[in-house]
Amino acid sequence: MKKAFHFGLFCFLFAVSFCTLAQNEPLADWNDGPTKQAIITFVKKVTDKNSPDYVPENERIAVFDNDGTLWVEHPMYTQLAFAIDRVKALAPNHPEWKDQQPFKAILENDVKTLEKTSEADLIKMIMTTHTGISSEEFDNIVKEWLKTARHPKYQKPYTELVYQPMIELMNYLRENGFQVFIVSGGGVEFMRTFALKTYRVAPWQVIGSSVKTQYQSEGNNHVLMRLPEINLIDDKAGKPVGIQTYIGLRPIAAFGNSDGDYQMLEWTTEGKGLRLGAIVHHTDDKREYQYDRQTPFGKLDKGLDDAKARGWILIDMKKDWKQIWK
Amino acid sequence: MKKAFHFGLFCFLFAVSFCTLAQNEPLADWNDGPTKQAIITFVKKVTDKNSPDYVPENERIAVFDNDGTLWVEHPMYTQLAFAIDRVKALAPNHPEWKDQQPFKAILENDVKTLEKTSEADLIKMIMTTHTGISSEEFDNIVKEWLKTARHPKYQKPYTELVYQPMIELMNYLRENGFQVFIVSGGGVEFMRTFALKTYRVAPWQVIGSSVKTQYQSEGNNHVLMRLPEINLIDDKAGKPVGIQTYIGLRPIAAFGNSDGDYQMLEWTTEGKGLRLGAIVHHTDDKREYQYDRQTPFGKLDKGLDDAKARGWILIDMKKDWKQIWK
Repeated sequence: MKKAFHFGLFCFLFAVSFCTLAQNEPLADWNDGPTKQAIITFVKKVTDKNSPDYVPENERIAVFDNDGTLWVEHPMYTQLAFAIDRVKALAPNHPEWKDQQPFKAILENDVKTLEKTSEADLIKMIMTTHTGISSEEFDNIVKEWLKTARHPKYQKPYTELVYQPMIELMNYLRENGFQVFIVSGGGVEFMRTFALKTYRVAPWQVIGSSVKTQYQSEGNNHVLMRLPEINLIDDKAGKPVGIQTYIGLRPIAAFGNSDGDYQMLEWTTEGKGLRLGAIVHHTDDKREYQYDRQTPFGKLDKGLDDAKARGWILIDMKKDWKQIWK
Repeated sequence: MKKAFHFGLFCFLFAVSFCTLAQNEPLADWNDGPTKQAIITFVKKVTDKNSPDYVPENERIAVFDNDGTLWVEHPMYTQLAFAIDRVKALAPNHPEWKDQQPFKAILENDVKTLEKTSEADLIKMIMTTHTGISSEEFDNIVKEWLKTARHPKYQKPYTELVYQPMIELMNYLRENGFQVFIVSGGGVEFMRTFALKTYRVAPWQVIGSSVKTQYQSEGNNHVLMRLPEINLIDDKAGKPVGIQTYIGLRPIAAFGNSDGDYQMLEWTTEGKGLRLGAIVHHTDDKREYQYDRQTPFGKLDKGLDDAKARGWILIDMKKDWKQIWK
């Protein structure tokens, strides 16, 4: 019996070693250079038991913003494109929208007026199109929309417009014992419809903005009704709040791309011990888009000013990534 | 190369098979009988790919209440004992408490008045003792308290007064590909201080009641300040809300012990496909406590009436468990 066990153990270790050797080079879709090196060095240090920077596996938390960090956010946030399509689909039941902003602008494809929409009007539109239905109904509507909607530039489903090097990075971190979370200003129930399939991130590891829900009876069963009341805006100073509320631990690595991620990067890298903060910088107008300080979606201004002093890496999409899409 | 891979795979499978054979009998701390059998049958069916009841691994969600389901809740909720000790510790800075209820009753050990405390007064006490400090400070205070506090009957740390058969059940479910979550009326930041060590449940798989937090600067750094404002009461109809907010999937198995778990059991077992709902019934006045319909802590009344009609298993602590404590 004891012998059999030893043989089993030997075989197991052999198989594990073999698998490790057979693994691909980490971050193959990243060009060699200081960015790739900084990420690999960080991971090696926090996973090496003999390093003073070692972090136990259950504390290896990495957080990723979604829009502009994992998938495309131009010419507008994908969820805004969804909301606009919802307004158009619901318009026949709302004749009053013809004279009400921002609905009027949407129905008339009046982009100029839309771009000037106030935050209050934007929230009104999100509430109108995203609430008053159950979580299950909302889930079905988003899934259906994602199947048919196409990005205006690439004419592809949005879930195909994810950054391959970032997918690879998430996998690399998971292989090294990290728990990977999405922490995004986007709606949590919007992202959960595709996060598992697209990013291998389980629904309970997706953190986002949310509305309040209410448990109520409907026929012989119950539903969770989405109410037109904000629960959490998971953006800016709301990101550390979202992290604490959902994860309950301070991350050791954070990846963002805009000033909406500033406090998440700050909260992460202010922690004791070795930390990694990184910003995806949209520098590639050929393969994707080029923008930072002057854009309505994914504005990066203060983060760009402070990155160096704070030790945050700037990921240069043009220079650092061999490919952007799958 | 190909041959080596096949040999590695063979060894790996051999090792895996061996480990499976070497596993202990499931639920060894449970007496043989219909309760144990119902749990094992459920797990076999949802994990068997050839069964019509098969559930893919990423949808195998099990939720557990904490107080009275995983650990002792008599003679009072552990967190209430903590709050009372906090009032006593903070009293020197609050001379006004000598004349204010419920503080007066606590400081005078006036149990009779305390038992009649209104919910509003209880919330006032929780807010006073649990907020106005950062999440990190709160975490330290709870950890220190748990080290020294002793249960009045057993004279043991509360974290040792966990039900061994339930720990075993959580492990059994995890071994079968389940994700195990705690869904409790208790404070989420209170439970997270011990859930990993005591239950092997990571902080992000603990769902509980919470106060709002705010990201704010303190000196050169930032803290998450606990505000005296309720974020979620994770009890009764708040439990399905907590489940949807944090997990984003409907569980297929739920374990509770009181009417506070009714809606969680209802929400779980109303779902399509095979589901398991179970109630820990405190029937053992010798080894633990005996209570159900008439108790201020962990009242089980409606759940007891409806369990049979709803197909919820009653776990009889006296009959079903070989041992209660480790």
